[in-house]
Amino acid sequence: MVGIGPGAPEHRTQAALAAISNSQVVVGYSSYMASITDLIGNRQTISTGMRKEIERVRAALEKAAAGNTVSLVSSGDAGIYGMAGLAIELGAAEFPDVGIEIVPGVTAASAAAAALGAPLMLDFAVISLSDLLVPWDRIRERLDAVAKAGLVTVLYNPRSKRRIKQLDEAVEIFGKYRSAQTPAAVVTNAGSKDEEVCLSDLGHILELDITMRSIVIITSEAARIVNGRLVMPRGYAV
Amino acid sequence: MVGIGPGAPEHRTQAALAAISNSQVVVGYSSYMASITDLIGNRQTISTGMRKEIERVRAALEKAAAGNTVSLVSSGDAGIYGMAGLAIELGAAEFPDVGIEIVPGVTAASAAAAALGAPLMLDFAVISLSDLLVPWDRIRERLDAVAKAGLVTVLYNPRSKRRIKQLDEAVEIFGKYRSAQTPAAVVTNAGSKDEEVCLSDLGHILELDITMRSIVIITSEAARIVNGRLVMPRGYAV
Repeated sequence: MVGIGPGAPEHRTQAALAAISNSQVVVGYSSYMASITDLIGNRQTISTGMRKEIERVRAALEKAAAGNTVSLVSSGDAGIYGMAGLAIELGAAEFPDVGIEIVPGVTAASAAAAALGAPLMLDFAVISLSDLLVPWDRIRERLDAVAKAGLVTVLYNPRSKRRIKQLDEAVEIFGKYRSAQTPAAVVTNAGSKDEEVCLSDLGHILELDITMRSIVIITSEAARIVNGRLVMPRGYAV
Repeated sequence: MVGIGPGAPEHRTQAALAAISNSQVVVGYSSYMASITDLIGNRQTISTGMRKEIERVRAALEKAAAGNTVSLVSSGDAGIYGMAGLAIELGAAEFPDVGIEIVPGVTAASAAAAALGAPLMLDFAVISLSDLLVPWDRIRERLDAVAKAGLVTVLYNPRSKRRIKQLDEAVEIFGKYRSAQTPAAVVTNAGSKDEEVCLSDLGHILELDITMRSIVIITSEAARIVNGRLVMPRGYAV
């Protein structure tokens, strides 16, 4: 189970490179596979489309049970909204003899933060707005709790083509507790060659172009813009 | 500003290796510097001890202002409880002509999660129990909010030699909302060759050996132990 980082080859770890290099089979979501053709070489590949997670993980486990070393790749960190949990669960249920090792990677929150400056220097929350697997009411409750507690919040999966209103509601929830001038930002394709960074505020964030490839970061009123970069001051007297 | 990952050389990214390789000067906390002697080679080094963050960052900026390419290294991700924010702030205040690039890394939460299984598959919060730079009352409020909202929580800096009671209070706060059987874990030296993993529960977590090099993860009641590994089920029907 290999996290290949946010996109650009430079953000891959040595362990991810070694894992793929040592594999006979590489399995992944088709669009991620296209980003690692340089690593795949002549290895056997299995790729499937969106929402085919179970089929993909099962195919990887089947290949491993047949005696192959298999890399099942996730973008970012396989353990953060990736396939690591499903691999462990499905492995235990159907392929108990297959050993599973998790190789951590640079998650999109880290890449987005680096592109913006340093918005995650203090405590933060990471919340996905996708309600495919978690009821929206529970996501709303979490948003309300972290907004009220003043936590900087990283929103994964802020929007898709079919899912528009969740981000509108999330911004409304933060607006109950934070001013419209609170710095907020969108990073699309964080950590890849197509990265786009847009620094705005809570009152204007919904005017930006936000897609399923974006990360949204809503800071708190302690955040500052320093030389065009977003920083949560850590309390050192500078 | 280079995040060198959680400790083991295998978790370094290509970008971190390239940044140090392209530098004339490497600056960092003395114990991190010892973990990258293989990368430093004959480069000039400046290392300082704990709590000398401002001196360290200023030394790096001075060297850069004098025309050197400098790597200021942080363990994990430089943008998560690292030096990235201070570098941007101090740079703007004292060395406005120095360009600062942030190279993200694998943060300790990702490494700890990978060692345990997949506890961060769903939303989570990251909170430091160090009250050196944030008032303890504010940290308590955040802990209460995320505990109440059912978020899996990663605690950085859970204890130091002088700071013992904060973790006791944090566990007490989670105990208001979650049962003593809620899975909880300690990973010490996550992602390094000395990594130690201990899976327990909220009722017994304080009996474990927890140091300033530990990460504590408190899950929610949805967490499961699968084949000895900690997993937050993501809601796929397996």
